[in-house]
Amino acid sequence: MLLCGFIKKRSLLSIITFVCLLNNVEAQQATWIWYPGDYEIWLANKMENRRTERGSFYPVFWKIDSHYPLVDFHKDFNLVQPEEVFIYAEGSYNVKVDSKMLEGTPTSITVAAGRHRINVKVFNQQSVPVIYVKGKTINSDSSWFVTFEDKEWIDETGKTSDMSATKWLNAGSWNFNSISQLPSQFTLPVLPQAAISNTQINSGKLFDFGRETFGFIKFHGLKGRGQLDIVYGESKEEALSENHAETLDKLQINLDTQTDSTLALSKAFRYVYVVPGGNVTYDSVSMLYEYANVQEPGNFSCSDDLINKIYQVSKYTFHLNTREFFIDGIKRDRWIWSGDAYQSYLMNYYLFFDAPTVQRTLYALRGKDPVTSHINTIMDYSFYWFMGVYDYYLYTGDKAFINQLYPRMQSMMDFCLNRRNANGFVEGLAGDWIFIDWAKGLSKQGEVSFEQLLLARSLETMAICASLVNDDQGHQRYQKLADELKVNLFSVYWDQSKHALVHSRVKGERSSNVTRYANMFAISFDYFDDPQKQEVKTHVLLNDSIQKITTPYMRFYELEALCAMGEQKYVLKEMKDYWGGMLNLGATSFWEEYDPTKKGAEHYAMYGREFGKSLCHAWGASPIYLLGKYYLGVKPTSAGYATYSIAPNLGGLQWMQGTVPTPGGNINVYCSTKEMRITGAAGKGSLTFKSKSKPVCKQGTIVSKGNDLYELSIENGKQYVVSYKW
Amino acid sequence: MLLCGFIKKRSLLSIITFVCLLNNVEAQQATWIWYPGDYEIWLANKMENRRTERGSFYPVFWKIDSHYPLVDFHKDFNLVQPEEVFIYAEGSYNVKVDSKMLEGTPTSITVAAGRHRINVKVFNQQSVPVIYVKGKTINSDSSWFVTFEDKEWIDETGKTSDMSATKWLNAGSWNFNSISQLPSQFTLPVLPQAAISNTQINSGKLFDFGRETFGFIKFHGLKGRGQLDIVYGESKEEALSENHAETLDKLQINLDTQTDSTLALSKAFRYVYVVPGGNVTYDSVSMLYEYANVQEPGNFSCSDDLINKIYQVSKYTFHLNTREFFIDGIKRDRWIWSGDAYQSYLMNYYLFFDAPTVQRTLYALRGKDPVTSHINTIMDYSFYWFMGVYDYYLYTGDKAFINQLYPRMQSMMDFCLNRRNANGFVEGLAGDWIFIDWAKGLSKQGEVSFEQLLLARSLETMAICASLVNDDQGHQRYQKLADELKVNLFSVYWDQSKHALVHSRVKGERSSNVTRYANMFAISFDYFDDPQKQEVKTHVLLNDSIQKITTPYMRFYELEALCAMGEQKYVLKEMKDYWGGMLNLGATSFWEEYDPTKKGAEHYAMYGREFGKSLCHAWGASPIYLLGKYYLGVKPTSAGYATYSIAPNLGGLQWMQGTVPTPGGNINVYCSTKEMRITGAAGKGSLTFKSKSKPVCKQGTIVSKGNDLYELSIENGKQYVVSYKW
Repeated sequence: MLLCGFIKKRSLLSIITFVCLLNNVEAQQATWIWYPGDYEIWLANKMENRRTERGSFYPVFWKIDSHYPLVDFHKDFNLVQPEEVFIYAEGSYNVKVDSKMLEGTPTSITVAAGRHRINVKVFNQQSVPVIYVKGKTINSDSSWFVTFEDKEWIDETGKTSDMSATKWLNAGSWNFNSISQLPSQFTLPVLPQAAISNTQINSGKLFDFGRETFGFIKFHGLKGRGQLDIVYGESKEEALSENHAETLDKLQINLDTQTDSTLALSKAFRYVYVVPGGNVTYDSVSMLYEYANVQEPGNFSCSDDLINKIYQVSKYTFHLNTREFFIDGIKRDRWIWSGDAYQSYLMNYYLFFDAPTVQRTLYALRGKDPVTSHINTIMDYSFYWFMGVYDYYLYTGDKAFINQLYPRMQSMMDFCLNRRNANGFVEGLAGDWIFIDWAKGLSKQGEVSFEQLLLARSLETMAICASLVNDDQGHQRYQKLADELKVNLFSVYWDQSKHALVHSRVKGERSSNVTRYANMFAISFDYFDDPQKQEVKTHVLLNDSIQKITTPYMRFYELEALCAMGEQKYVLKEMKDYWGGMLNLGATSFWEEYDPTKKGAEHYAMYGREFGKSLCHAWGASPIYLLGKYYLGVKPTSAGYATYSIAPNLGGLQWMQGTVPTPGGNINVYCSTKEMRITGAAGKGSLTFKSKSKPVCKQGTIVSKGNDLYELSIENGKQYVVSYKW
Repeated sequence: MLLCGFIKKRSLLSIITFVCLLNNVEAQQATWIWYPGDYEIWLANKMENRRTERGSFYPVFWKIDSHYPLVDFHKDFNLVQPEEVFIYAEGSYNVKVDSKMLEGTPTSITVAAGRHRINVKVFNQQSVPVIYVKGKTINSDSSWFVTFEDKEWIDETGKTSDMSATKWLNAGSWNFNSISQLPSQFTLPVLPQAAISNTQINSGKLFDFGRETFGFIKFHGLKGRGQLDIVYGESKEEALSENHAETLDKLQINLDTQTDSTLALSKAFRYVYVVPGGNVTYDSVSMLYEYANVQEPGNFSCSDDLINKIYQVSKYTFHLNTREFFIDGIKRDRWIWSGDAYQSYLMNYYLFFDAPTVQRTLYALRGKDPVTSHINTIMDYSFYWFMGVYDYYLYTGDKAFINQLYPRMQSMMDFCLNRRNANGFVEGLAGDWIFIDWAKGLSKQGEVSFEQLLLARSLETMAICASLVNDDQGHQRYQKLADELKVNLFSVYWDQSKHALVHSRVKGERSSNVTRYANMFAISFDYFDDPQKQEVKTHVLLNDSIQKITTPYMRFYELEALCAMGEQKYVLKEMKDYWGGMLNLGATSFWEEYDPTKKGAEHYAMYGREFGKSLCHAWGASPIYLLGKYYLGVKPTSAGYATYSIAPNLGGLQWMQGTVPTPGGNINVYCSTKEMRITGAAGKGSLTFKSKSKPVCKQGTIVSKGNDLYELSIENGKQYVVSYKW
């Protein structure tokens, strides 16, 4: 702001120049760039089509899109002195300086001093058109603009038309910051790991890698001729069931000399049963563990060992399912499902805080226009996608990403709105899958209250994002639609005699059936007034006669709603029962579904298949989120943690401590029944707590809010010690 | 129809069985198949991105699309006996029989007797997912169905949902009828050809290949180290102008032994100037002529040698520009332009009658949804695309293609209709290029009459095609829009005092300027009443004070309009002057533009560049069309030549003879001033002619229509000899 005084008398050109110079100074780091979303979609195609089932290629059943094969990149620069610039691309390319095409395919150019526009246009059908431009001040980064149609026509005199109608977006990028990191060659890193034991069983050997893992099996000293069967198992039973294991490889070996050989496709397993045929022999078997190279700034530990174990296994489960994208499960489906990913985003904010993986996943799910179907073909999953954008902005404050994504949000919402019925409600049309949850006998007919609720939240997301990109008309439209829908859905579904939202309305008849789904989301979205909340808590959430939830997927929202109502103590017990139950059965990662009434290998069956169940499923890792948000009690109260609240809740623990990552550093919380020690991150924090005694803090001023409630402002980087009584 | 008697008492299942058996008997030929349009778009990307300009990669400036990377193919079969079926694909694939996935990647399966559905699902990012399935009765062809999203979800019990909402289209195919003809490997054939002379000029050698040609330069006995410059010229002047030639190659040679070496990229040239640097030597230079392997059933010859020469050079020009697709010019742009292609379609019907090249070109131009811009960014070019579909159906009667294309026609028309102004007219919005023609000072402002006319014709095309695909609502809507627009445009643009349609209306003011464009199209479209036609002929077409047309592009429509008005004699003279003028200047193929007032190398300049003009441009070949349609006088009067008319017009020639291809065989016409000899093709033909004496025909009954006009019905394959007096 101070600068304005200096520049206000200058011409507009000078101001622009000045701003550009500032930009250049900031942009010293070159990185590979692309059309936003294109690399993400291309990489997702590659990842999702690696799945096999019993040796068969097993792809998704929805539309997958492609990158634009031809992309133009440009940026304007103002150079104080001439500069040599190196240009690299994946694909055929040409280079223009000030709209004049340079001869040949330049790899290095000298740009004269002064104001210049540099364009690089790239064609690549096989992989994504990407460029890397490196000079002293001219470097490729997300401040460059891209388009898939430059509309740069010429007239009969050779004059180039202006490109005013071209839609430019800021370029996409990740962390490919050196020339040699070609985006098309990206693979996840690997680490060699050994089996902890092996046992001869019949004609084969069973290798145990000690816990659920993921990677490439490697044979050492492989030799001979014949078939080599490899059967993967998340359980011992699965590895030993050649006829029913979900994944297997049958290799034809023809090796004269002993050779080390790594399989081409990575798999999920704890056990591997290896059966050599013919005269095939090998010395040993190991694996290359394949993993996403994300940091783990988040953490949690406490006075309860079982909870600590649950947290650690959740972390491992979540890390395994965090790959190029957030996937559902590592054995199956190895796909990106919007409903599953939505929970992963939330867990991510409390463990990795890895924004690029969220961005990539949102892009991959959304794909490209035209929208021909709901995301993953599931109506709820379209809405989770919007909700994921909402949370992304809330946790990261990253407006640039919303700017890039907004056009695709609009067309996705158009698709949803165009499928409403005459009442303004959504119901399943031909081709729509209404999922909600895997639950026996759950009705998906007619106007389901749960879906209207999610649509309302999605519309609120649109309204917020419209404001962010200065689409005022859009903001008004989406806000009005959201408000009307909320009024409408409460008038239709709220049943005062049931003290709850009912499940659905079919052919104009309101159902008397109450399920947990809409009710728990309405709590999380804060759509109820206080009396309604209490009624729902008693008559739905804590009411055993309402159909129980059996998937960790919906347990996530159920336990979240209970926590939001202050039921941390109850939830802690539930966590110990449910997740502890899996640990008791020897789980080394958390499952897709858990039903305590089942026995032995029954636990592994699902979808009518003996080993159909995934034993390492992202949605099984929700304690990461619950413990961070509702026990440590840390959450943003405005975008990007500009303001945030800390409200620790021991829920019956003696003490707990942990770290919650934010865009502006980590928040550390230690809390016992007597003391809290808090370190703040960037932004304005507010610690809220109850105390039976008058609390004391030397580092700040505690404000009493009455009724034993206290508040303390938390500043960046400062440590606060609070004595109090739980 | 006879069959109905036999089967009417059978069950529905039997009837279906019976029909399927018939289908199978017909479908003995397997061919590679794909999602319709996908291979065409992929191949166009490959072709259009081969262009270089002075060694720089020179791509198009509009959006290019990609194939769907993941495609599902299926067909139902009913087998009398078990059958072994071989399955091939480009890409990863799986096979399902009756919705059950087979283990592994089967290359051969045995299908049991009875009714079965076979699905093959293929993923391929680099090239198009394609399959080839070969059995005794089970063979891949266009009767298979394809989709890019099968929406085949399962429930928690493993039950597969039905796919009733999936949109299936018939598969696309071409002529890849053997396993080894992998679609991704397709290249045009080549023939070795020698230069007719070479001349040492300074440090290089100028090779003359005798006439305009296209292909790959080949060096024999190349050896040494240094740079080898190759400058291509459509004229001698261009080849010798290293600084201004449009195409050149600069190769770095490093060869110890004499090697034969062919260049990677094909080029257009008659002359090649080769300048070896360092110690580079070679024995000789030849070329591989690259061409489209299309038949030339059409022909024309006559008593005038210059017209014969013009016809032959037109044929050669058109064949050179017919490649994987119909392109504009072989030196430049080597792209698919809708306006240029539209004329190529019409020429094609009188020379090759190659329907697949029309289909491919229409698909490549259209690309995929969403429509973000007019075709080639040009408003008129979107309309020519619709008109091309109209003609395709008229000439071929191929309803299956219309079925495939109709969804893309709808979304393309939606785009156009959404850009109308409040008057229901189109005018250039931001990002629209209004082309019309290369003509000095031509106004493109406001509501141009020519564009409204083309939109009206496009709407008529939509109305016809809607009927063909049983979209009755669409038919009514489009027909109404077309009718209203025609009434509206005549009321706005017809100026009785000018006896013509005026050029435009700008800001509500009707221009007094008359140009030829709208007027000649209105004649071809038959939009005028008879008095209007005569007025326009006198006051516009034959009026020298109306701005002249200089491009063969618009000459095409001008001469067509004159022919449609019976001015064959005048047009013959024009043809001889204009095309003969180019031949006089030594042209071996026809040019992008010809201005008789220019001198020497001035002719080669365009777009502000010395050799910017293309000397081999498809639109220069229009005599093929004019001579076939308006001299031999052959044209379909209903779709696919079900009915057709033959109305020979000598236009001053002593005699002419020729062949016009149709879907049901060739029509042969010989016509002198005394005798006609006609052989008919399938369909109902009608010979119409004037005779000053009573005509005689032994093979049919001539009907007098009064006023010296006669008619004779022509049957398939029968030859008719008619004595008459011209």
